[in-house]
Amino acid sequence: MAKIPHRLYLTEEQMPSKWYNLRADMKEQPDPMLNPGTFKPTAEEDLYPVFCKKLAHQEMDAETKYVDIPEEIQDFYKMYRPSPLIRAYNLEKALGTPAKIYYKFEGNNTSGSHKLNSAVAQAYYAKEQGLTSLTTETGAGQWGTALAEACSYYNIPLTVYMVKCSYEQKPFRKSIIQTFDATIIPSPSETTNAGRKILAENPGTGGSLGCAISEAVEKAVTTEGCRYVLGSVLNQVLLHQSVIGLETKTAMEILGEYPDIIIGCAGGGSNLGGLIAPFMQDKLLGKADPRIIAVEPASCPSLTRGKYAYDFCDTGKVTPMARMYTLGSSFIPSANHAGGLRYHGMSPILSKLYHDGYMEAVAVEQTKVFEAACLFAKQETILPAPESSHAIRTAIDEALKCKETGESKTILFGLTGTGYFDMMAYNAYLEGKMTDYIPTDEDLEMGFSQLPKIPGIQE
Amino acid sequence: MAKIPHRLYLTEEQMPSKWYNLRADMKEQPDPMLNPGTFKPTAEEDLYPVFCKKLAHQEMDAETKYVDIPEEIQDFYKMYRPSPLIRAYNLEKALGTPAKIYYKFEGNNTSGSHKLNSAVAQAYYAKEQGLTSLTTETGAGQWGTALAEACSYYNIPLTVYMVKCSYEQKPFRKSIIQTFDATIIPSPSETTNAGRKILAENPGTGGSLGCAISEAVEKAVTTEGCRYVLGSVLNQVLLHQSVIGLETKTAMEILGEYPDIIIGCAGGGSNLGGLIAPFMQDKLLGKADPRIIAVEPASCPSLTRGKYAYDFCDTGKVTPMARMYTLGSSFIPSANHAGGLRYHGMSPILSKLYHDGYMEAVAVEQTKVFEAACLFAKQETILPAPESSHAIRTAIDEALKCKETGESKTILFGLTGTGYFDMMAYNAYLEGKMTDYIPTDEDLEMGFSQLPKIPGIQE
Repeated sequence: MAKIPHRLYLTEEQMPSKWYNLRADMKEQPDPMLNPGTFKPTAEEDLYPVFCKKLAHQEMDAETKYVDIPEEIQDFYKMYRPSPLIRAYNLEKALGTPAKIYYKFEGNNTSGSHKLNSAVAQAYYAKEQGLTSLTTETGAGQWGTALAEACSYYNIPLTVYMVKCSYEQKPFRKSIIQTFDATIIPSPSETTNAGRKILAENPGTGGSLGCAISEAVEKAVTTEGCRYVLGSVLNQVLLHQSVIGLETKTAMEILGEYPDIIIGCAGGGSNLGGLIAPFMQDKLLGKADPRIIAVEPASCPSLTRGKYAYDFCDTGKVTPMARMYTLGSSFIPSANHAGGLRYHGMSPILSKLYHDGYMEAVAVEQTKVFEAACLFAKQETILPAPESSHAIRTAIDEALKCKETGESKTILFGLTGTGYFDMMAYNAYLEGKMTDYIPTDEDLEMGFSQLPKIPGIQE
Repeated sequence: MAKIPHRLYLTEEQMPSKWYNLRADMKEQPDPMLNPGTFKPTAEEDLYPVFCKKLAHQEMDAETKYVDIPEEIQDFYKMYRPSPLIRAYNLEKALGTPAKIYYKFEGNNTSGSHKLNSAVAQAYYAKEQGLTSLTTETGAGQWGTALAEACSYYNIPLTVYMVKCSYEQKPFRKSIIQTFDATIIPSPSETTNAGRKILAENPGTGGSLGCAISEAVEKAVTTEGCRYVLGSVLNQVLLHQSVIGLETKTAMEILGEYPDIIIGCAGGGSNLGGLIAPFMQDKLLGKADPRIIAVEPASCPSLTRGKYAYDFCDTGKVTPMARMYTLGSSFIPSANHAGGLRYHGMSPILSKLYHDGYMEAVAVEQTKVFEAACLFAKQETILPAPESSHAIRTAIDEALKCKETGESKTILFGLTGTGYFDMMAYNAYLEGKMTDYIPTDEDLEMGFSQLPKIPGIQE
């Protein structure tokens, strides 16, 4: 067999024309979302005030295994996809590992991450339904940029609530989102009841994804023709992001490879869920048994230290409740934590799979993450996003274990994006000013104590 | 024939293994460089104190038509190349033009531009010769980042003199260059005689590429085991950058296309010279006759308003003199000019070709450039660098002419890089604070009056 190329790009013909819905192959389904007033399972129609209809349907549909990607979305994908599957030859050499390291690089688009994969889908369906505006939240700013790009393309006015500490750490994220014509508001803000309430309780807060979600949802449901869109956590997002895993699996098949270990960073689960989808399918169907590792920040350890419980998806407690690994919707990671992956919960699909033993999770400290990021940048000539660098850290750790054991494992990780807008965090690391934060058990108990009480289900 | 894909990536096998040396096909050669003391033509050996030997040879070699790309450099290229040739379907649709627009996108690497193509070559040859450090200058910061990446990969300490106004406009460029372990100094600085002299004459200056070159050259020639490397203007750089054009031509052949018009932005000429190389070869050999258009900023119009004359390549007048289109080595564009393309001269090869009528040039104002950049970003989902956006402006203008005439021309332009580090300039544009600057004839006369006098050649 010929030498494996550094980068493999599929042709347009090899790109997927359907998304893959992981739920259709799960033996046990995630528990249903519950209405926070009635504690009854949420029906598709209950979601219509918040999401456009097609997306509400995708959110609830656990049956359809393959969902056609509308041709317009496929065309948009072709503007920046396929993303390359890259063999990290230089990183392998620098580590002196017998492991083969591959990464799927989703950062080669202006949003700088995989988020565009779902943003374009959500903007497209909103346009199709004739909606006149959208709202969303953004943490590190990648989702906000991605959705601004997609909305600009489809001419839909967009308001982005950006987690305040990210807004302040990343001044240029604001500019790029504005380049794509979106309005951007630091959250919590005075523009919503939810924001005003949070500010009254904690005026100095740097915000959280949970607060920003509350504000964006409130704005959407109180504005005519407006809906809310979310870049992670949701089932529909994992569906759209399956394009990452489907491309990866096809590319690996072309190379005659199959991963022994699959690693992805995990905040709300959008990248991880997308990357692993077809490999998890193999696992669910008993066709293969790769190790699947979710990597989360030690400062926001929802899988490794959270509870598998019903919780609100937002701080303001306006969304349906989902059963997931959570730190409690009031949990806000320390402001010293750089970048995204600061969500209190985790995709219900991934939570269920983790709970059922289909995947592992590790938590890593950010100084170790940036150490890995800098090594990776120098060897592979890509400056990674802090979020993605969590996966790099663990991929390096696994490759070093192979060095010890002499095993030549095939490691695949998701490189979700680039770090061009994270230079303040890189600065802090390079200047030795970055610190680590690990919440104490007491910090976590505080979050857990506020989990909702649901008669007969969660007392 | 099948529909042309949005993006075409060559396979590794289709990538060039040789660079193409345009001089070997030129009927008349550029005039020789002259020693500034003796006014005698510079010999290869004269360059050894400044450049490493292999690069000095490439600088002088007008004979060898195809130069083997060392395998190590090919391997480095494979980390981020091939770059895609993209059909701008959405831009075409937005413009309503019958023209077909293609662009070669060089921004998908962490340096954010095509500059890495020559940086890796120059760092490799320096390492091969056993040099222990390198110096360079950078304007917008793309070259500095690219060289820092390459030097970090080959473990060569690097000092970057960055044009002071860019250093101040782009704080994060500094961080990224430091991530790759380089030392960065705003120029003019107190670290060199050239810098001190310029500061004494003009303490408030924002600097220029010309000053930064003087400082970097001085530092190199006064430091043991150190040499200077430059990211544009030089013949060797155009040689390395021919990889852009060679890939583009192969890709267009696969698509069954040939450009009627080829457009590139022009500062020192590195991108333009690389992109056009094999198409200019066709033109020189009478095989085809595409229009070739250099686009420069109205604020630094070396081709459209400069003189074809012998001049120094730097402000401190320490380099050999080259015959080129120049505004005079003392010319410094207004600080209101965003981004790169602020060099007073132009590649001697391109200058000669322009002088002999093989290409055209246009100058465009920066507000028009940013207008084109924002339109492009929204349609093509890539945030372009200000430099690259000069080419976008002219590509759009040519496509709109096709709309008037109904001609379906094939337009090719070079999208040299991304604008992630240029958000302050985008901000200024979006907030309506960006202004245009066009030097007056008097401004230009001032520069011309200081062109060197060379007995018998330039009086």
